[in-house]
Amino acid sequence: MTTPLRLGIAGLGTVGVGVVRIVQRHAALLAARTGRDIVITAVGARNRDRDRGVRLGGYDWEDDPVVLATRDDVDIFVELMGGDSGPALAATRAAIAAGKDVVTANKAMLAHHGQSLAEAAEAAGAVIRFEAAVAGGIPVVKALTEGLAGNEMTRVMGVMNGTCNYILTRMEQDGLGYNAVFAEAAELGYLEADPNLDVGGIDAGHKLALLASIAFGVQVDFDSVVLEGIERVTIGDIRQAADMGFRIKLLGVAQLTARGLEQRMTPCLVPTASPLGQLEGGTNMVVLEGDSVGQTVLRGAGAGEGPTASAVLSDIIDIARGTRLSTFGQPATTLVRATPAVAATPAPYYLRMTLQDKPGALAKIATVLGDAGVSIDRMRQYDHSDTSAPVLIVTHKTTGSDIATAIAAMADTGVLVNDPLALRIEPV
Amino acid sequence: MTTPLRLGIAGLGTVGVGVVRIVQRHAALLAARTGRDIVITAVGARNRDRDRGVRLGGYDWEDDPVVLATRDDVDIFVELMGGDSGPALAATRAAIAAGKDVVTANKAMLAHHGQSLAEAAEAAGAVIRFEAAVAGGIPVVKALTEGLAGNEMTRVMGVMNGTCNYILTRMEQDGLGYNAVFAEAAELGYLEADPNLDVGGIDAGHKLALLASIAFGVQVDFDSVVLEGIERVTIGDIRQAADMGFRIKLLGVAQLTARGLEQRMTPCLVPTASPLGQLEGGTNMVVLEGDSVGQTVLRGAGAGEGPTASAVLSDIIDIARGTRLSTFGQPATTLVRATPAVAATPAPYYLRMTLQDKPGALAKIATVLGDAGVSIDRMRQYDHSDTSAPVLIVTHKTTGSDIATAIAAMADTGVLVNDPLALRIEPV
Repeated sequence: MTTPLRLGIAGLGTVGVGVVRIVQRHAALLAARTGRDIVITAVGARNRDRDRGVRLGGYDWEDDPVVLATRDDVDIFVELMGGDSGPALAATRAAIAAGKDVVTANKAMLAHHGQSLAEAAEAAGAVIRFEAAVAGGIPVVKALTEGLAGNEMTRVMGVMNGTCNYILTRMEQDGLGYNAVFAEAAELGYLEADPNLDVGGIDAGHKLALLASIAFGVQVDFDSVVLEGIERVTIGDIRQAADMGFRIKLLGVAQLTARGLEQRMTPCLVPTASPLGQLEGGTNMVVLEGDSVGQTVLRGAGAGEGPTASAVLSDIIDIARGTRLSTFGQPATTLVRATPAVAATPAPYYLRMTLQDKPGALAKIATVLGDAGVSIDRMRQYDHSDTSAPVLIVTHKTTGSDIATAIAAMADTGVLVNDPLALRIEPV
Repeated sequence: MTTPLRLGIAGLGTVGVGVVRIVQRHAALLAARTGRDIVITAVGARNRDRDRGVRLGGYDWEDDPVVLATRDDVDIFVELMGGDSGPALAATRAAIAAGKDVVTANKAMLAHHGQSLAEAAEAAGAVIRFEAAVAGGIPVVKALTEGLAGNEMTRVMGVMNGTCNYILTRMEQDGLGYNAVFAEAAELGYLEADPNLDVGGIDAGHKLALLASIAFGVQVDFDSVVLEGIERVTIGDIRQAADMGFRIKLLGVAQLTARGLEQRMTPCLVPTASPLGQLEGGTNMVVLEGDSVGQTVLRGAGAGEGPTASAVLSDIIDIARGTRLSTFGQPATTLVRATPAVAATPAPYYLRMTLQDKPGALAKIATVLGDAGVSIDRMRQYDHSDTSAPVLIVTHKTTGSDIATAIAAMADTGVLVNDPLALRIEPV
């Protein structure tokens, strides 16, 4: 047995406490699996006095994460504070400068600063691992970086925000409107302090950008992720979709095609019978498609103390075993800056709109669609009232930009009661 | 860029050819991801003259796999010949003795000789990797060995024989009997030369024993895997199960409990709504349960050229990147010899029998079950004829041994028309 591997843990929220618990409970197991003792030297968090229900007495306490990250008796800086910059970023940079390895669950920090951090780490001979940053306990970063590394990846998809999937599932199962379920989720503490991180797709978008970097050998580019939240999805949309054999999911899709890098985190229709369509509640799912392996699906807990801590531990164990990988699967300096695709790979779209109930309204919409080059696969009217008529259209395969053109032109027809909603039907 | 990593590939069947294709097609991608050129130095197979549809001209040919395995210009011996002993084993042992790393897809060899091979490899400083031996393209060996290594694993389950799942799915979807679908599968070339390897559960049992070793830190013990094939499952069983919300799968289950190591590869009922229940056709699925991560599900192609070659490549890439792991996740000398469990964790059972149509027959069966300590949850008679009555019983949770006792006693009642079938209802 070689020298112990010494951890300095910054951040003692749910995940940090989970990591401490595993290190304490499974000391023997971890030593057996890595050949080294894994020990905690120092910890730190904003509030020292809070009772976290876990023994911390044996560890040094550091108020300053930069000091924690650079201690001589810390081999791995375990960054579990969160935040895309601020103390997390400062401490991570300090750790790297001091030649420490870094294990983090911080998707926001990596989505914004992943490239510069990876370059700094690799120049310093340090590694950054972030399994816990994407899809909680599901070992998807490992599957993509290592398990499928013999493939040219063709597409990466994922339902990676449990809160959104919970909201959509509750709406469907209990016939509740978005606002009611949102309020309930807020009360239950399921939402981030800024709920837009969840329901606006930002949190899941961070994760998608990290996976896209590994899959396609490109620099992380969160800014070009097309983000659309689930706020505009109604119970009516969910029912109409179900009626046609689809479910609505906040789905991340990344593809590298001749058009450039596509990255979307948007509500999509997927077939109810597909693995993605069958996913319910807070569970996460990632679909990895490679040229040799075909479609590989991973499903599991995307959040929570145990699952996320499990992912943190897998990174720590890798380092303890001597596994040293480039942050995004190849040297950071070789990652290319991809051009964001101007248009998505064509797909059918679901279009929902409410028209004024006057003669010729539908004809005007059909004309506008035709002018934009969008052809109609099926159309139905439902819940007709005296003054307005909800209309649902499923298009043949078309580009998102043609849809956008059509929707812009619809506004000029004067027959719309409110803004149309367009959802991509992702072929899965 | 360091020196090239040189492969010697023995076996040029579907998988071997797939590996050659990826190495040729993705040379640049592999070099970018590993920092080394990955090259093939020598290949060999039984028949040199066969046209395999792939360029082999640039590689040395070796008829003798032992010679191939020990060439000075081979760093990794890629064993894709198959067979639990014979040339595959001899060449693997020779490679290890020569200090070569080994990548293999050979589940039979490892199920029978894994412990001694792992000990030899670790003594020689060589690694043996076998991602392709279990569930084809699904990176499940990696997920278990590395991705979930911070967990005490509580259960491992899997549908890992695509042929069996194909047969059961076809029976259900097309209402065909086992024999008809079996004959069709044989004609289509879906079956191994010895079909019992597939339908008898042996092939899948090999895979289960390998996963159990990693999950529980035990020596591979294929001989103690309880094997039961799908031959006795009828279309009637499939329909009755469906009627109660279940599907029948050839399911592998491994658990380490106070009773010892449980390893079963048997037809089981699983809820239709579960991920395992939703699996159709030739796809594989593995369910990994750990104390922190909960349930993680992996699904993908379990066989075929591309997926299996993808798995072989992931092992080669790991080695190219300098990742060096113990064969079964911890040093082979620390793996314990587990005591096989004498009885499985209690579960409900599905019991199907045909009784003679005479008064008191059912009472006799009920008495026998009661005497064995098996209590009945529900019972139904169906397809009643003049002389016999099929009866279906679902028990409350009971042990497999109590069921066996009851079935043995049933034979003495004189009311059975044929042998009863007992299938475990695995809680998933």
